[in-house]
Amino acid sequence: MIVIMASNWATSFAGFARAFSTSSSRMVKARKYLMVTHFQGEPKKTDLKLVEEELPSLADGEFLCKAKYLSVDPYMRPYMMRYPVGSLMIGSQVAEIVESKSSKFPVGKLVVGSFGWRDYTISDDKESENKPYILPDFGDLSPSLGLGVLGMPGNTAYFGFLEICRPKPNETVVITGAAGAVGSHVGQIAKLKGCRVIGFAGSDEKCNWLKNQMGFDYAYNYKKVNPDQALKESAHKGVDCYFDNVGGELSSAIINRMNTFGRISVCGAISVYNTDISKMPKVPILQPTFVFNQLKMEGFLVTRWLNRWNEGIGQNLKWIKEGKLKHKETVTDGFENMFEAFTSMLRGENTGKAIVKV
Amino acid sequence: MIVIMASNWATSFAGFARAFSTSSSRMVKARKYLMVTHFQGEPKKTDLKLVEEELPSLADGEFLCKAKYLSVDPYMRPYMMRYPVGSLMIGSQVAEIVESKSSKFPVGKLVVGSFGWRDYTISDDKESENKPYILPDFGDLSPSLGLGVLGMPGNTAYFGFLEICRPKPNETVVITGAAGAVGSHVGQIAKLKGCRVIGFAGSDEKCNWLKNQMGFDYAYNYKKVNPDQALKESAHKGVDCYFDNVGGELSSAIINRMNTFGRISVCGAISVYNTDISKMPKVPILQPTFVFNQLKMEGFLVTRWLNRWNEGIGQNLKWIKEGKLKHKETVTDGFENMFEAFTSMLRGENTGKAIVKV
Repeated sequence: MIVIMASNWATSFAGFARAFSTSSSRMVKARKYLMVTHFQGEPKKTDLKLVEEELPSLADGEFLCKAKYLSVDPYMRPYMMRYPVGSLMIGSQVAEIVESKSSKFPVGKLVVGSFGWRDYTISDDKESENKPYILPDFGDLSPSLGLGVLGMPGNTAYFGFLEICRPKPNETVVITGAAGAVGSHVGQIAKLKGCRVIGFAGSDEKCNWLKNQMGFDYAYNYKKVNPDQALKESAHKGVDCYFDNVGGELSSAIINRMNTFGRISVCGAISVYNTDISKMPKVPILQPTFVFNQLKMEGFLVTRWLNRWNEGIGQNLKWIKEGKLKHKETVTDGFENMFEAFTSMLRGENTGKAIVKV
Repeated sequence: MIVIMASNWATSFAGFARAFSTSSSRMVKARKYLMVTHFQGEPKKTDLKLVEEELPSLADGEFLCKAKYLSVDPYMRPYMMRYPVGSLMIGSQVAEIVESKSSKFPVGKLVVGSFGWRDYTISDDKESENKPYILPDFGDLSPSLGLGVLGMPGNTAYFGFLEICRPKPNETVVITGAAGAVGSHVGQIAKLKGCRVIGFAGSDEKCNWLKNQMGFDYAYNYKKVNPDQALKESAHKGVDCYFDNVGGELSSAIINRMNTFGRISVCGAISVYNTDISKMPKVPILQPTFVFNQLKMEGFLVTRWLNRWNEGIGQNLKWIKEGKLKHKETVTDGFENMFEAFTSMLRGENTGKAIVKV
């Protein structure tokens, strides 16, 4: 039995693994993070447990993947509340195929898979809604972008903003969580569409980055400004589109400054992801504003556009190549640092996409 | 000068007026309600003042109308806050043309006009967004229905429910303010579309009427039940469409029981119309529910469908003639009782459409 420890893998692994790809006698030990206690408030390290498991040999149609980049995203925090204790932490990764019994997923290719927080994964080529896919050709760009601007967050920005807000030139667009992977991307699309773009983020540094690098017209540190005052300055014609990543009082202040037929795309509610669902913060009811300004608000999960996934990636890649779309990654090294990367992201310490490099 | 006092007018008025319709020397005194103090909380009688005004003789294109039925509607309460002190109370009425210098609006015809709370009005045939229109032929039905099931509230139900909720057969529809003009109408359309229909209203009597006369599957007195418990019983498959007339905690309880891709049509927020805008009741934020269940909420004013007005009236009239759509009016007699009819309606004392008969 050959035990392959993930921590010993080097960049030469692919060739090494290939040598064994016809053998069915060796075994691989995978490491994975299980949620052993449901999160309460900010996740604690002891809520997770890193365990090892021996992977069986491959059956026909299966392939073995080794994680290269793993994603940490806000949605993981609330979603894990829906899973029982003992469940694998959910998440996607860019992984290399190191052994394969599927002609569709050959050794050496990179895949994007919703494999969860684990270093080695056996997947298969069966059709399913959330099946792994071969990473498209990004040219010189890092494969890690398949978890960010050219993956789920990128498509979240592309579809969630364009399909729900349907921005028109000269409209005013407000974005919260603006310095995150999705928010910073939405702002750039809004600029490409000819809109006035206002972002709210959690530090002066992020705001400067949004204004100086990402092309936002205005960016405010929500910890320092009165949002109503800020919008009086920057959105003097009112707000037409609001891309909401945060929820809470800040969202209400923005919604109350919206114009007739304003559109709100609700992407997330990171301000309350660490809050017990029975203790959600209260805000004044919004229905009167909705009626009199004829507002529309829609929440979405990006999976509704799975059938258009490549359209989103293709357009975002085109914009990057044309120099019209910038991106930033906050990279944490080491699979053993998944927890720290995750909680740091929940605290808003990242700028752009938070990922872990194995 | 001939002074025609509205209070003396009899049913023979039309002929009487016609005799004078070629004269330009007579004068008409109109009575009208002005808002002399902005409402605070429940409107007080002293917030309004009934005044007389002399109407000038008609110019070309103008016509003189005498109110026959006036509407009192929830929207008047919040809308008047947008007008300065001294403004005419807003509202629509069915009125008879008693003098005319417009071939399009001949004497004897009934019109529906947004004339405000006044008994005599000079209008004109100029094109404008909110221009009066000749009451369609309702056959044997009362012209007063032009203020209700065959007018603005009827179109509010027809367009506001069908266009925004887009109900599908076998879906579950919840309606608040269900015993009002709009709510009771929406419930019947939902039944016609093959939906399971659940109403919330403010008295047992209303609930019995909804279940026994209007065909609702379930109706609950919101003052007595726990809405969450009630929906567990009646909406065991979850709620697909919610037609919201009230806002507040009740709305939140319903929204939190909605299915993926649920649709919320926000028609009004009568629960807070008497509340100072700076003191709106607070409810837990809804964004997390919106994201994870991919909900859509849209507020509307029925005027957005002005270009399809006759379609709505025509369909509702057809349903009435086919016996598929019932309606009820709560009628107050006398122009001098406008205030009482208005506040009674705001307290929910009406069933179906609240109108004042002159």
